[in-house]
Amino acid sequence: MKFSKNLMKAAVTIDKYALYVPKSGVFPKKFEVGSLASGVKKNGKLDLGIIVNTNKEAKSTASAVFTTNRFKAAPVLKSKQVLESNNFEGVNAIVVNSGCANSMTGDVGMADAEKMCELVNKKLNLKDQTLVMSTGVIGQKLQMDKIATGIENITFGSSYQDWLNVAKSICTTDTFPKLISSQFKLKSTGETYTLTGIAKGAGMICPNMATLLGYIVTDLPISSGGIKKILSFAGERSFNCISVDGDMSTNDTICMLANGAVNTTVITPESEDFEDVSANVTSFAQQLAQLVVRDGEGATKFVTVKVTKAKTFEDAKIIAETISNSSLVKTALYGEDANWGRILCAVGYSKLGDISALDESKLNVKFVATDDSTPKELPLLINGVPNLNVDENRASEILALNDLEIIVELNTGSETCNFWTCDLTHEYVTINGDYRS
Amino acid sequence: MKFSKNLMKAAVTIDKYALYVPKSGVFPKKFEVGSLASGVKKNGKLDLGIIVNTNKEAKSTASAVFTTNRFKAAPVLKSKQVLESNNFEGVNAIVVNSGCANSMTGDVGMADAEKMCELVNKKLNLKDQTLVMSTGVIGQKLQMDKIATGIENITFGSSYQDWLNVAKSICTTDTFPKLISSQFKLKSTGETYTLTGIAKGAGMICPNMATLLGYIVTDLPISSGGIKKILSFAGERSFNCISVDGDMSTNDTICMLANGAVNTTVITPESEDFEDVSANVTSFAQQLAQLVVRDGEGATKFVTVKVTKAKTFEDAKIIAETISNSSLVKTALYGEDANWGRILCAVGYSKLGDISALDESKLNVKFVATDDSTPKELPLLINGVPNLNVDENRASEILALNDLEIIVELNTGSETCNFWTCDLTHEYVTINGDYRS
Repeated sequence: MKFSKNLMKAAVTIDKYALYVPKSGVFPKKFEVGSLASGVKKNGKLDLGIIVNTNKEAKSTASAVFTTNRFKAAPVLKSKQVLESNNFEGVNAIVVNSGCANSMTGDVGMADAEKMCELVNKKLNLKDQTLVMSTGVIGQKLQMDKIATGIENITFGSSYQDWLNVAKSICTTDTFPKLISSQFKLKSTGETYTLTGIAKGAGMICPNMATLLGYIVTDLPISSGGIKKILSFAGERSFNCISVDGDMSTNDTICMLANGAVNTTVITPESEDFEDVSANVTSFAQQLAQLVVRDGEGATKFVTVKVTKAKTFEDAKIIAETISNSSLVKTALYGEDANWGRILCAVGYSKLGDISALDESKLNVKFVATDDSTPKELPLLINGVPNLNVDENRASEILALNDLEIIVELNTGSETCNFWTCDLTHEYVTINGDYRS
Repeated sequence: MKFSKNLMKAAVTIDKYALYVPKSGVFPKKFEVGSLASGVKKNGKLDLGIIVNTNKEAKSTASAVFTTNRFKAAPVLKSKQVLESNNFEGVNAIVVNSGCANSMTGDVGMADAEKMCELVNKKLNLKDQTLVMSTGVIGQKLQMDKIATGIENITFGSSYQDWLNVAKSICTTDTFPKLISSQFKLKSTGETYTLTGIAKGAGMICPNMATLLGYIVTDLPISSGGIKKILSFAGERSFNCISVDGDMSTNDTICMLANGAVNTTVITPESEDFEDVSANVTSFAQQLAQLVVRDGEGATKFVTVKVTKAKTFEDAKIIAETISNSSLVKTALYGEDANWGRILCAVGYSKLGDISALDESKLNVKFVATDDSTPKELPLLINGVPNLNVDENRASEILALNDLEIIVELNTGSETCNFWTCDLTHEYVTINGDYRS
């Protein structure tokens, strides 16, 4: 029976830690990090981390993208306030705890978030220059005694291990820490700059474990106007283009900090290199966001949904997101079933801003292999007409891959949205069927 | 371990056929029905049905609500055209086949849908007065030879068994046929009228099996303007208020036919009884729609999500729908986990038309038992503040019920939306992981 065979195949475990956790790394100049196990997590695991900018030569700039959920957790409200009152400049530390989200905790929660910032400011001799993030269970109060002692005892360093530990300290149900680094050169300066990104996931799919956190730090000098524009563009094309189950938490925060430790001209939206920087950060943020999907709860497949030749990015994204969130598409991927009808159905019920973005008679849908096997592309729908001669064996081969692509070509314009999703598995139901106990 | 126990409990099988299929019924006057196994379904099951209005004394009226999916199947397009060209009057037959959806079948599919109508018109001596519906696999052509022979051979009757067989003939992955009848009296006439409804489900969750079909027939005389208004109101509060997995098919059709066989004054939107009729039909359509949720693929729970005291019905519905479609809420229900954080999260990311519809500080959330156990209501959130003294044992008791309610009280107005959903189970993943093979 095809079914059992497929589900067994899909259940083969991939060693994600070995595949996705780096063994070494270069990190941006003049950042230090520290972490420890404060005791909030019962299992003695790392649960508190701080990132500090130690560059005194330039004013750092920062930007953040927060959850649009109406129920924003206290640390989200506090960090927003710190960014705004500092005019997005001179923010020099980020403190993050895991194990408790400090969400739905009312005035006490707000006071606790403020206290965390205050303690870090005091420790580092800063003046309201610290952002705070929390992730963990909703509706429980922070154990502030443990957090306070933790903040007091944290020591800093800048080695690979220090960075990896900070990445570990924000994990909740993650099966591996998410840490990446990358370097790029700018034409105008000839200098090399470094980006480091840390994220935690599993999590978007798990809003009682709140939830998706990410931060990107760099030693490139960027103006506050520039960093805002760069992060907003990158966020829209990375962390806002992933789906594990479509749920959105109360604590989601993506934040970017630039300390200008490589002392070159400040990048502004008018700079000749601006588009280049923006493209670099976007591609970097996409890599970081993809790790969250790879670690989706119960996921056995990593699927790129590409909606191409669209009139606008926005409508391309709505279609890509609708496909990526469809339980039927996701279970079909799990079952390795070439069920293109479900993909088409999802395209058809996407709530487009501009209905002319979709013309059924121009639509092409393909499965695409990500390995070296051929034919690479398998057309399922051609100009709106089902490919009745589709090679089912080849379809099965492509669907058996751990990584695959679905291309939906609208042929109504020239914009593209790439979206990343995973399959919906028995393990997902098991994990989420009883998370709290 | 709480988890395994709960999931075992949830897996207890309910004999839905015994519970939800009536043993007898009264049916509207002057309708006849027929069905047979045409051979399209390979297992010799009923797969073709016709409903005929035999009342010649009055002109029937009809209305339908069709899928808003951009990819509409041929029978949807054809039925829409028949209704419009007849000005929603004098439609006297509905032919339905199951096993093949005649969707994504292009011009051939359109010709086949037309042929089905033509054959029924000819058989019954009608003049373009037949609606057509199809449900089954997408992207396959109808076996018109079998359908044609079937239509030729169908015979009609009006017994309970005839009606039950028609209900059976439209089933696909349904585990029981959905047939209900109800009678009501109108004050102004003192007469008794009958409603009969047939639906097929499983299906909304299964768009490659296209999908949700429902029809309601009555012997009450209603004007074409009246029936349109009544069905649109009822549909919005019944079939559009259910969710199995949030997917919407290419063939969804709800249709209503009134033949006026009880020869009283025609009901128009101006009639004194209009609201009464509308309320009766709405409540009837809700019962029919609920059967679809009860038969949701893999479902072990039937959950009513009530959003009350809302500014508008529309925003109440958006919130109810968002909760009902959340994979996290649905897996928590399956695991019988009182995870109110997930409900709140879904409320928070609902895409409201009017953001003032939601005021966090006025929000109450409760679980409600549907049996006689007490306390009936278990408050989880009171005026936006989590109930930290929630009785977890009582929560577990309520969540162990097969039927339960979630009440979300917005306290910003006076409108209510009731939405019906089911849990997301291992069995759902199994069924949808490999439907085609």
